[in-house]
Amino acid sequence: MINALFAALPERWTQYEKTLNDAFLEAGLQVDLRTSFAPEVVDYIIYAPNSPVQDFRPYTRCKAVLNLWAGVENVVGNVTLTQPLARMVDPGMTQGMVEFVIGHVMRHHLGMDLHINGQDGQWRDHVPPLAQDRRVTVLGLGELGLACARALSELGFPVTGWSRREKFVNGIACLNGEHGLQTALENADILVLLLPMTPATENLLNTDRLAWLPKDSVIINPGRGQLIDDGALLESLDAEHIGHATLDVFRVEPLPTNHRFWSHPRVTVTPHIASETRAKTASQVIAENIRRGEAELPFLHLVDRAAGY
Amino acid sequence: MINALFAALPERWTQYEKTLNDAFLEAGLQVDLRTSFAPEVVDYIIYAPNSPVQDFRPYTRCKAVLNLWAGVENVVGNVTLTQPLARMVDPGMTQGMVEFVIGHVMRHHLGMDLHINGQDGQWRDHVPPLAQDRRVTVLGLGELGLACARALSELGFPVTGWSRREKFVNGIACLNGEHGLQTALENADILVLLLPMTPATENLLNTDRLAWLPKDSVIINPGRGQLIDDGALLESLDAEHIGHATLDVFRVEPLPTNHRFWSHPRVTVTPHIASETRAKTASQVIAENIRRGEAELPFLHLVDRAAGY
Repeated sequence: MINALFAALPERWTQYEKTLNDAFLEAGLQVDLRTSFAPEVVDYIIYAPNSPVQDFRPYTRCKAVLNLWAGVENVVGNVTLTQPLARMVDPGMTQGMVEFVIGHVMRHHLGMDLHINGQDGQWRDHVPPLAQDRRVTVLGLGELGLACARALSELGFPVTGWSRREKFVNGIACLNGEHGLQTALENADILVLLLPMTPATENLLNTDRLAWLPKDSVIINPGRGQLIDDGALLESLDAEHIGHATLDVFRVEPLPTNHRFWSHPRVTVTPHIASETRAKTASQVIAENIRRGEAELPFLHLVDRAAGY
Repeated sequence: MINALFAALPERWTQYEKTLNDAFLEAGLQVDLRTSFAPEVVDYIIYAPNSPVQDFRPYTRCKAVLNLWAGVENVVGNVTLTQPLARMVDPGMTQGMVEFVIGHVMRHHLGMDLHINGQDGQWRDHVPPLAQDRRVTVLGLGELGLACARALSELGFPVTGWSRREKFVNGIACLNGEHGLQTALENADILVLLLPMTPATENLLNTDRLAWLPKDSVIINPGRGQLIDDGALLESLDAEHIGHATLDVFRVEPLPTNHRFWSHPRVTVTPHIASETRAKTASQVIAENIRRGEAELPFLHLVDRAAGY
């Protein structure tokens, strides 16, 4: 019997108890899944970074900490964590993110607001340009960024991708480094932010870099709120340089009711709905990693603790 | 020298003169392209159905009438037309249609209006279902319908396609006939209309068939206005059966300012912008058909005069 501790807030237990047990059964694993164990008997910790478990030292037998979320910034710096840490790469979450990004890119590409809000009897029959004439840049080429870049390219957009480390992806113009970032931003009619949150990416979009974006460009941020310097963004929007920002993530969530983002005519706030881990597919990923641990195979989706993601 | 008559309204000439001559040059064809010829010397007519040319009998040498548009309903019944008639299948138009359909399907799938119009400080963090749980039906599996069905399927939607004649398409559940139509409509959370306008498709969506759609389903019509019985649609919207209709085409265009569609809260009018023939790619298609005519090869995209499309 494998002892798996479910260390997350109680509402997650309601969501995951059945799907995890189903996934273990399907994977042929005999797992005792509980929300509480004596630390020294725990084999795996299924983990959300807002769990009460913050000291990993008593978990002496634990083979891995399996994060339920894609973002690991609130656990990666925990010095008591010496076990391998895997982040969640959930195909359901990736699919949801692709759908959100495609939808919001198309909203701006087609100029849909003009018609959603323009039901005034005026026949404004301007046909938008084709995707081939709308340049999209995706910052971040991890699981989510790459899936979005590929789907956008598949729809006909010329896509530039930028990542910290050098990457090569068929059909995507891949750039890296500070010089590459400038080129990536200068060519972004629409910019999608899907970078992880690390000290190196915090406030990546500051005043100088926002100025590299073309006038009237659109920013879509379903990544992390801290990637953007909020004040610099508001200044650029007020100066009518950035055309629109669709923001799904914020430094403080829920975004306070009196925040200027809510009332700014060039900002669309979406309430952290771009995607979420889906219990069924995420449980299958957890089960697969436990299967790998038991078979002494390498874990999937291990976090690079030095890089922070 | 090949004599090609450009028979369309003068504004089209401005749009097409250069792109057609470029395309002829590229295809290695020596074409004398003009807006007027003695009828008996014309080899090909490049045609828009609203052209003054309505009597084709004097064009005794004409090898084909090459339509500039996808829709042929205003020329197919012309009894003086005995020459082969080709409709326009423009890759640029197909691409534009795919983009429009993807964008408007995603708008409804993601519930984007809630956020576009809901910037009131309320944190409504309901994550929409994945595409795999949203059934889309495409009526019409011609060039445009098929391209849209494939792109929707590629994005993860379960797609049902319906056509008059039996078809088989990988990844699409294909139905035909009246019984197939009922199944296709009963399974449409989102319905896309891309049928040609023929006597058989006029008012296809009438009161009975609208009732087959699930409650709260969404209709997107970038096909032809006459496919829908307008009064029946308004009744179904008023009865809160159909959730929303996004209409791009109408019986009378521009849609009169006082038409109820403009003011109905569950209707989005878009002013016939879903797609249009793009001069550059359309000119290449015309050139290719003239090349085929000169080489005595079969013309592309010939209209079935009996079926009407």
